[in-house]
Amino acid sequence: MNKKLITYDTGNCDPSRVGDELGISREEIDGYSEHFQNALTQIKKWDADGTYGFLSLPEDNPAAREAVEIIGSAPEDLDTFLHLGIGGSSLGPIAIQKALDNSLTQKKSTPFKRVIIHENVDPEGFSLHADSIDFSRTLVNVVSKSGGTIETLALLTATFARMKKTLSPDKLAEQLIISTENPDGVLRKLADEYGARVVHLPGNVGGRFSILTAVGLLPAAAMGLDPSTLLAGAAAMRKACYAADSHHDPCFLSALIPYLLAQRGVNIHVLFPYSDLLGGFALWCRQLLAESLGKKVNRKGEVVHVGQTPMASIGTVDQHSLLQLYMEGSDDKFFTFFEIENFRSDEPLDDLPHPKLEPQHKRGLTLGKLLNAELRGTAEALASEGRPSTTFRIPRLDAHVLGQLFYFFELSTAYAAELYDIDAFDQPGVEASKKLTMRYLRGEA
Amino acid sequence: MNKKLITYDTGNCDPSRVGDELGISREEIDGYSEHFQNALTQIKKWDADGTYGFLSLPEDNPAAREAVEIIGSAPEDLDTFLHLGIGGSSLGPIAIQKALDNSLTQKKSTPFKRVIIHENVDPEGFSLHADSIDFSRTLVNVVSKSGGTIETLALLTATFARMKKTLSPDKLAEQLIISTENPDGVLRKLADEYGARVVHLPGNVGGRFSILTAVGLLPAAAMGLDPSTLLAGAAAMRKACYAADSHHDPCFLSALIPYLLAQRGVNIHVLFPYSDLLGGFALWCRQLLAESLGKKVNRKGEVVHVGQTPMASIGTVDQHSLLQLYMEGSDDKFFTFFEIENFRSDEPLDDLPHPKLEPQHKRGLTLGKLLNAELRGTAEALASEGRPSTTFRIPRLDAHVLGQLFYFFELSTAYAAELYDIDAFDQPGVEASKKLTMRYLRGEA
Repeated sequence: MNKKLITYDTGNCDPSRVGDELGISREEIDGYSEHFQNALTQIKKWDADGTYGFLSLPEDNPAAREAVEIIGSAPEDLDTFLHLGIGGSSLGPIAIQKALDNSLTQKKSTPFKRVIIHENVDPEGFSLHADSIDFSRTLVNVVSKSGGTIETLALLTATFARMKKTLSPDKLAEQLIISTENPDGVLRKLADEYGARVVHLPGNVGGRFSILTAVGLLPAAAMGLDPSTLLAGAAAMRKACYAADSHHDPCFLSALIPYLLAQRGVNIHVLFPYSDLLGGFALWCRQLLAESLGKKVNRKGEVVHVGQTPMASIGTVDQHSLLQLYMEGSDDKFFTFFEIENFRSDEPLDDLPHPKLEPQHKRGLTLGKLLNAELRGTAEALASEGRPSTTFRIPRLDAHVLGQLFYFFELSTAYAAELYDIDAFDQPGVEASKKLTMRYLRGEA
Repeated sequence: MNKKLITYDTGNCDPSRVGDELGISREEIDGYSEHFQNALTQIKKWDADGTYGFLSLPEDNPAAREAVEIIGSAPEDLDTFLHLGIGGSSLGPIAIQKALDNSLTQKKSTPFKRVIIHENVDPEGFSLHADSIDFSRTLVNVVSKSGGTIETLALLTATFARMKKTLSPDKLAEQLIISTENPDGVLRKLADEYGARVVHLPGNVGGRFSILTAVGLLPAAAMGLDPSTLLAGAAAMRKACYAADSHHDPCFLSALIPYLLAQRGVNIHVLFPYSDLLGGFALWCRQLLAESLGKKVNRKGEVVHVGQTPMASIGTVDQHSLLQLYMEGSDDKFFTFFEIENFRSDEPLDDLPHPKLEPQHKRGLTLGKLLNAELRGTAEALASEGRPSTTFRIPRLDAHVLGQLFYFFELSTAYAAELYDIDAFDQPGVEASKKLTMRYLRGEA
């Protein structure tokens, strides 16, 4: 497979376009040559010694084969795949589903007519999903690395109640998969109790970096996608990034530019795909950036409170919602656009009834061309107000490209953490809320 | 109808809970008594003289009757209602649909099995919707106040191409509704050309304040909801807010607290419903706040660049995505939680297999109780880090409550604009992007 890679355009960060206040000059970037070399060396070391397993997932990853085997051998009378998980266990699968589980995709055959990913403990949201499911024809996949995530255990409890109404114990065992790592976790014990199949998640891959483990690959296979194509895209990106010999490498730049802007008070990073179907990817990315880079303490133990707030916008919709603020509000935002160059379907607009366009402007015009003209118009308008942006160009939305994007942003996040000198792989800030929730549940508060 | 109103809890803004740095004291609030009186007087004046029509929409609004009449008289062989619009013409209908167009709602009968709201010119997103539609059985409602919104005209062009394939001119006229205001707009001319019914939108109601016009009420009726219940909720809220005799009025406080925090560098306002079904409402609210309050220039003509960036989070999902950053990142965020007190359905969790909970803690536990315990745990954890929040308590998610919420936030936004001394009702910042897009389309850039 020799597929095109995504490209990264940083032109709208240049001082000639956005002015000196937030423009990033070549000289400034050139000051980070050594940072780049050190960071890449560190990352390759982590990859080689297995410290952070996400780095090597594109290569020699048995999860793809296992996913295909599980889906291929599922009982023939099943038609629904229900994926239960939250955060790192749901956002990746949702990103894949939104982009690729549709009629525009070349999919392999799968027994599953639909894949439902359910993440929240909102009882109304649960009811809307669960009431639409015939559990006698459903394969349930429960995903929690620790095996103790309270939301996932709660969803499993509510789901069990419904499964037990329609399934014998044998059937229940056959229609339940537990994806987990911790051999002492609650989930693992439940798997043994019910005789469910266990899918082992690797211990050295954190939740928000787990999309290329069974967490993402098993639901992808259930959607009829080929998990190996996602891996091939990630492998192509890994190869390109590892071959980089300068700090002008796109992946490093995608970390450096927002980092430099953060030093000047740019606290918000807007992820701005001009694509409905990349909406899930933007939310996956939002978690990756927020949890990895939002940190109180750096590696020296200094209190730093770093981390831009990532937010997800969709073009053109949010031109009619947030652009007014982006243009005129505080000067605290950096924009990352995503442009799709070739659409899997398009609609002619030669007859567009717009008073400012003559027939010759409309000849050959399509929805896709309008969409991308609006992206460029918006990026340029923001630049004219001194607001910098970069643009990813995506040759075509498919599994290979999605694999590239996942890997690119994971590596970019690792680069950013090196620049901030923080640990990208922990999340100490979420414990307090868990403890207080327990106090409420125990009636102590 | 004598329904409960939503309540507003500001306890987690008190200096005793969040400390002095971002805590808001009663004394500070008491300094705004005159601002409140002046703002309410101004708002009532606008209401009385019709300057801003959204204020009086809950009373004597013919759009509800018209919506019911249109839906009730729709040809019997139709089964799909397709709503085309963007921004102010889509976010409100989507908020209603997400919250209420489901099996949990007591709905009136409607001929329409499904309502599809399509807003974006992404050709792939359009294709996924349009390919699923049988246009011979579809009523198409095209919504643009100005009648010249390029995205909506483009969607109409692509939709026309498909309608014309299956419909005679007579049928096409019967199955097309044009919702617009401008008598000289392109849409209005198209309506005349094709013989479509025109639904008139009021001239003194801006797009993002238009949810209680036909923009929201017509699709609501198509969903089988009673538009008059939305209006009744809004009317109850209007009455309560107009009767306020002190600056401790919840609606004024909901504007004042974020305003005071913005003066201390709190640039981000997180809208944080603990409800999947309020996700659309959060996006509606995000537009309302961003477009109304994100302004470069105040009424004195001074360059101020005001406006917090509103972002939408969903609990508990975003505890596993953004909470790490909310707890440990920059101290630039204010949180508005939404808690639903009574759920339309719930699931028992007496069997929840969690090692830290004893049987007596789980007796009577439900998904809903877990959800709300997590909300309280999270708000308290944020407060313990000095990060302030407020909480709306919603008695039950229904059309009356949604009407209350819409009106409350519209009025709150008007109060906020008075505090900032800006015009809440214009959006000058979006023009530059439109002009540049035209240049791209005309081949001039």
